[in-house]
Amino acid sequence: MSVETKIDLLDLNADVSEGFGPYQSFERPELYDIITSANIACGFHAGDTVLMQKTIDICQDKQVAMGAHPGYRDLIGFGRRALEMSTQELKGDLLYQVGALWALAKANGGKVPYVKLHGAWYNQAMSNADHAGVIIRALKDFHPDMGWLALANSPFMAVCHQEGVPVYSEVFADRAYTDDGVLANRKLPGAVIHNVDESLEHVKRMLFDGKVKTISGKLIPISVDSICIHGDNPQALAFAQRLRTTLENSGVRFQSFSRGGAL
Amino acid sequence: MSVETKIDLLDLNADVSEGFGPYQSFERPELYDIITSANIACGFHAGDTVLMQKTIDICQDKQVAMGAHPGYRDLIGFGRRALEMSTQELKGDLLYQVGALWALAKANGGKVPYVKLHGAWYNQAMSNADHAGVIIRALKDFHPDMGWLALANSPFMAVCHQEGVPVYSEVFADRAYTDDGVLANRKLPGAVIHNVDESLEHVKRMLFDGKVKTISGKLIPISVDSICIHGDNPQALAFAQRLRTTLENSGVRFQSFSRGGAL
Amino acid sequence: MSVETKIDLLDLNADVSEGFGPYQSFERPELYDIITSANIACGFHAGDTVLMQKTIDICQDKQVAMGAHPGYRDLIGFGRRALEMSTQELKGDLLYQVGALWALAKANGGKVPYVKLHGAWYNQAMSNADHAGVIIRALKDFHPDMGWLALANSPFMAVCHQEGVPVYSEVFADRAYTDDGVLANRKLPGAVIHNVDESLEHVKRMLFDGKVKTISGKLIPISVDSICIHGDNPQALAFAQRLRTTLENSGVRFQSFSRGGAL
Amino acid sequence: MSVETKIDLLDLNADVSEGFGPYQSFERPELYDIITSANIACGFHAGDTVLMQKTIDICQDKQVAMGAHPGYRDLIGFGRRALEMSTQELKGDLLYQVGALWALAKANGGKVPYVKLHGAWYNQAMSNADHAGVIIRALKDFHPDMGWLALANSPFMAVCHQEGVPVYSEVFADRAYTDDGVLANRKLPGAVIHNVDESLEHVKRMLFDGKVKTISGKLIPISVDSICIHGDNPQALAFAQRLRTTLENSGVRFQSFSRGGAL
Repeated sequence: MSVETKIDLLDLNADVSEGFGPYQSFERPELYDIITSANIACGFHAGDTVLMQKTIDICQDKQVAMGAHPGYRDLIGFGRRALEMSTQELKGDLLYQVGALWALAKANGGKVPYVKLHGAWYNQAMSNADHAGVIIRALKDFHPDMGWLALANSPFMAVCHQEGVPVYSEVFADRAYTDDGVLANRKLPGAVIHNVDESLEHVKRMLFDGKVKTISGKLIPISVDSICIHGDNPQALAFAQRLRTTLENSGVRFQSFSRGGAL
Repeated sequence: MSVETKIDLLDLNADVSEGFGPYQSFERPELYDIITSANIACGFHAGDTVLMQKTIDICQDKQVAMGAHPGYRDLIGFGRRALEMSTQELKGDLLYQVGALWALAKANGGKVPYVKLHGAWYNQAMSNADHAGVIIRALKDFHPDMGWLALANSPFMAVCHQEGVPVYSEVFADRAYTDDGVLANRKLPGAVIHNVDESLEHVKRMLFDGKVKTISGKLIPISVDSICIHGDNPQALAFAQRLRTTLENSGVRFQSFSRGGAL
Repeated sequence: MSVETKIDLLDLNADVSEGFGPYQSFERPELYDIITSANIACGFHAGDTVLMQKTIDICQDKQVAMGAHPGYRDLIGFGRRALEMSTQELKGDLLYQVGALWALAKANGGKVPYVKLHGAWYNQAMSNADHAGVIIRALKDFHPDMGWLALANSPFMAVCHQEGVPVYSEVFADRAYTDDGVLANRKLPGAVIHNVDESLEHVKRMLFDGKVKTISGKLIPISVDSICIHGDNPQALAFAQRLRTTLENSGVRFQSFSRGGAL
Repeated sequence: MSVETKIDLLDLNADVSEGFGPYQSFERPELYDIITSANIACGFHAGDTVLMQKTIDICQDKQVAMGAHPGYRDLIGFGRRALEMSTQELKGDLLYQVGALWALAKANGGKVPYVKLHGAWYNQAMSNADHAGVIIRALKDFHPDMGWLALANSPFMAVCHQEGVPVYSEVFADRAYTDDGVLANRKLPGAVIHNVDESLEHVKRMLFDGKVKTISGKLIPISVDSICIHGDNPQALAFAQRLRTTLENSGVRFQSFSRGGAL
């Protein structure tokens, strides 16, 4: 894509609906005025069927695109722990959760054009092409037009391209990359950008130059469809709002990558 | 319907896929050679995503129609306990489970043409028109052609007719009715038919005469699309096999009520 | 007991530790400076083993007595829904949760001198002498000196007296009684006292006169060992603090009813 | 210990009570006539409070010693999957489950003299001294006389000795060791002994010679307090019965290692 295309339309995504029963979800209501795509927790790591319906209502009302956000079946660990999963479990746990949200959304006149994995599942799938292949093919078997929101430059994206399924790349405003083009481990020095202005520069460079700075200082190519936003605390929300305003002032228009597609 | 229609085509349904993790499901494999419709547990009272896939494979292989069999979220109680459910929970828990099976089946080239509720949910919904209305309209919002397998002569069936959604009536080979036309409580004398020959007569009367005997001895009208079969023990299986053979010898052909419909 | 005894020592109790995994518990930290007994959620309706340990640490630090607060096994419903429970389930679910807290407390040098039931279990047990008998005898079999914190004037308290086990009566600052001496249903007019000054008068009358006003205006006898406090919002905390200060100014001293007993 | 001591008294242990709700536990009733110690599942990987009570009744009736058999909180994975656990989770999940069984047993007049970990927890703890230390000290804080049933020659046993807590060594009739003295991985050639006579020889050598054959053919020292038995299928039961009879004929008497101790 050319730089112009990149500037033209950008998506902001965030994880939502991550509550359970008596426990409210973490995102603040103002978040829905900033993001263009909402990753809706589907029940295994968080989310319940009443909360999912409430979230679908909000997304429909705010015209925010809805994505399935399936996680590992680990409610107490919030889907953050790596789990040994068989191929059948991976396929089953994906389709079960995607279908559940699909039905809730469809009954409410809505669509679920994409999937973004949660937590440990995201981490395990993005870097492992075999794992990626299993679930990418499973989703394709369910609906070939359903897309993935995935880590920019990841093996997962490569498998999506091989399988010919829609995939959109997401980046993080505060995370640096290694020279190999993958997200640097949080524990490495320079992996997390703490300064707000530096984060904004980081994002602009990715969007307008198509490059991302690595922890060694190199510039490597990157393509961006969406920026992942956190919406669970006032600081994160303020940063997200500032990011959006800054980019709008630079001519970026915000729209979901799914473009309200035919799905 | 005329008697001829009744004789022509009959469905046998059974609950299946009611295991969890290390625990096998209760039905025996031979069951799939007898039934024409399988009510597949969807995870809340029993069933997991690996078992559901395995069951879908078997149903596809044996050409048994697949129905969603959602239950209350009560794994330890096997969905047999009445629960206070809000309207939003009823809608959400229904669509979540139906959608989950829908996606697993569709990814495997299969369809889910109907829903049959499980345990306490079945009992509560069949007799309560308000409750029935909530979930019947929710399913209609998801897919207007998806049908219900419901208790013959129940208020639930009446609401389906009002809402214009497909509904199929099921009866039990061993259960008598009250004079009011509803299933007699198991605790009432004569409510459960223990004699096998009597059960067969009971079924034939319903199928060929369109009448069912009440516990007071009256004959009241009944219409039958399916007979509910148990498949978790050798006696039940032997009875089911005998029932099927007896009816086949009387000219009944067996096919799912869903007729492999367009869904 | 004489009025003087009543004035002498009073307990304030609150439900705590009602979070789960990623979800914090509802009580605010300031609560532990007001209450003298903490009812610690034991995992079935809320609470996890990490949170329970954290709560035990706080209670030990603040010298707040620790009680087991078992609930029905209904995480998503927060133990607020009535459940059909067999005798064996009632016994088992009680002892399992009490023992779990017991071991966590004991390993930390603490004691669990009492039990207070949660939500629907509390409601069902307080008014049903048969149900009460099952669990009172089960706890007695575990430890005859372990006490119950129970609804003042309830059938549950009567069974405790019959069985010769310690029981302490709790009242609510904002709840009126029926002429029959039982807590009035929240839906009845006058059942909930919304005015703060009126609540304080209500409490003082119970403590100093040994009487409680019914919704019909009568005064009936009541004996009070503890007042149940809510600690999940600033208004509730402010009221609790004012209640404590007001009563301290009237000469009441605050101490857990369990008096740091030998248990 | 001398060979005579070894011959004198031997324990046979098995995992029991591993069902859940509608699902029966895997062990067959005849097992309780063979074993002298029963490792009772405590609810996180399997087991419920009704089943635990039933199992306690059987153990009391058959005079089989009762041990807590805590597992990772992974019902669907049956506790067989490794989990990332924090120190607080390890302590909490151990004490919670041990206390739960403790209370159920005590209310029934029984004792819980030992703990044996389940599945992935067993595997992770036996080989990791840091992990072992956390939970060994936690249990010691709860009750210094409660013992562990642990893998013979394991780092876990060494930490028990350092901490001065009771520990009993278990071996497997069908598993070989490495030259380093640890259980050989099942996947290695020769790690699993499939021949029944060979298994019996293997056990006798451990008991009477105090030696175990390694997969390379060496003989290394081993001390045995208990042999782990499987009781979920007729073949396993038949082998266990034959093992017991064979050893009884060699003069071995069977008794729980806990000797009905003071706990």
